[in-house]
Amino acid sequence: MPLTIDVITLFPRMLDGFLAESILGRGIGAKRLDVRVHDLREWTTDKHRTADDRPFGGGAGMVLKPEPVFAAMEQLQTPGCRRVYLTPDGEPLSPAIAEELSREEHVIFLSGHYEGIDQRIRDCVIDREISIGDYVLTNGTLAAAVVIDALSRFIPGVLGEEKSLTHESFTGKLLDFPQYTRPAEFRGMSVPEVLLSGDHRKIEDWRHAQRVEKTRKVRPDLLKQHQT
Amino acid sequence: MPLTIDVITLFPRMLDGFLAESILGRGIGAKRLDVRVHDLREWTTDKHRTADDRPFGGGAGMVLKPEPVFAAMEQLQTPGCRRVYLTPDGEPLSPAIAEELSREEHVIFLSGHYEGIDQRIRDCVIDREISIGDYVLTNGTLAAAVVIDALSRFIPGVLGEEKSLTHESFTGKLLDFPQYTRPAEFRGMSVPEVLLSGDHRKIEDWRHAQRVEKTRKVRPDLLKQHQT
Repeated sequence: MPLTIDVITLFPRMLDGFLAESILGRGIGAKRLDVRVHDLREWTTDKHRTADDRPFGGGAGMVLKPEPVFAAMEQLQTPGCRRVYLTPDGEPLSPAIAEELSREEHVIFLSGHYEGIDQRIRDCVIDREISIGDYVLTNGTLAAAVVIDALSRFIPGVLGEEKSLTHESFTGKLLDFPQYTRPAEFRGMSVPEVLLSGDHRKIEDWRHAQRVEKTRKVRPDLLKQHQT
Repeated sequence: MPLTIDVITLFPRMLDGFLAESILGRGIGAKRLDVRVHDLREWTTDKHRTADDRPFGGGAGMVLKPEPVFAAMEQLQTPGCRRVYLTPDGEPLSPAIAEELSREEHVIFLSGHYEGIDQRIRDCVIDREISIGDYVLTNGTLAAAVVIDALSRFIPGVLGEEKSLTHESFTGKLLDFPQYTRPAEFRGMSVPEVLLSGDHRKIEDWRHAQRVEKTRKVRPDLLKQHQT
């Protein structure tokens, strides 16, 4: 059975290209993934199709109203589905979270305005809040796409080569080793000799040393997390 | 003068919807931003339009070849432009980095395969490596979109309301306060009284306390970073 994903957003067309292209398109074509994008305004009831309003207590920006979101969730949700809100104050996305979501049968992503959504939505019709990083986007639609892309890699048959999941950044909290491909010599720059040696043990050792060295230099915080 | 952004990718159509919709479309319409998406295969020279090859030293997946990327960069780059590679082992994206990039005149984003790119590209034609988070995507195109979205918010005239930049997650390393909008009562749930009080000092105090409380609960790591 494919993983069914609903995305509720004010900008449904933002995902058109993303869903058609690349690996996602392949997963959808192979019926491993069924992604449906919904315009939140379908669940508004006034003639202006109002989905947001000004915040109580003052402040700039607009806040998503509770009524259309409750109505959308109540129509789309299924027993046992996971309702996810994308927000910079959520739990940081990790490969473990992506893998967990990839094993669900039905996930609903709610994309909010950058100014936020009515707290009662978060209290009642959201099961999990996820952040893709410590920065602010104009709205959550791109964040939903990032989570869908990250989880799709864990669905069997979506990635071309299963093995490629194992040798990557964040396996074991180390960054990736440098990659080289042909030509072996390009504009006077040669590929490190060890990679041409055919000695797999030596290659593994070199790659591991490179990963540790790069992690120490670029992301020492990952090594600290690893030790504790 | 608008900020000129070039994106080099194997999946140019992935960004179609993203560029047409939402705030990005507005920035582009208002000539504050000029985003051009390029198919890396335009710079391949063989009849199969080969842009990648197998890694030296073994391993799964395909690695971007140096020749087409060098050719693309040499054609697109301008004096003083910033050449950015999106990769999970780069520097983590932050609002400060987004703001810095928003003040450039010309930024080129290179989107790689999930297995990586030839290291000689990173050594010679990349100025900065940026990660949007500690997880792996199928390719860097979505990551480029995330950086473009994050930086576009800092370009004057792109966001509708300038003020809305100030009250958000990550201003001062605290998460955002809960937002509420009309109706004041919805399905038996009321908006906190303080927000209806009209007492701006009390509202500010309540919001600050909520931000500290939420940050302590969801992201205690941010408070630690703040103290050091």
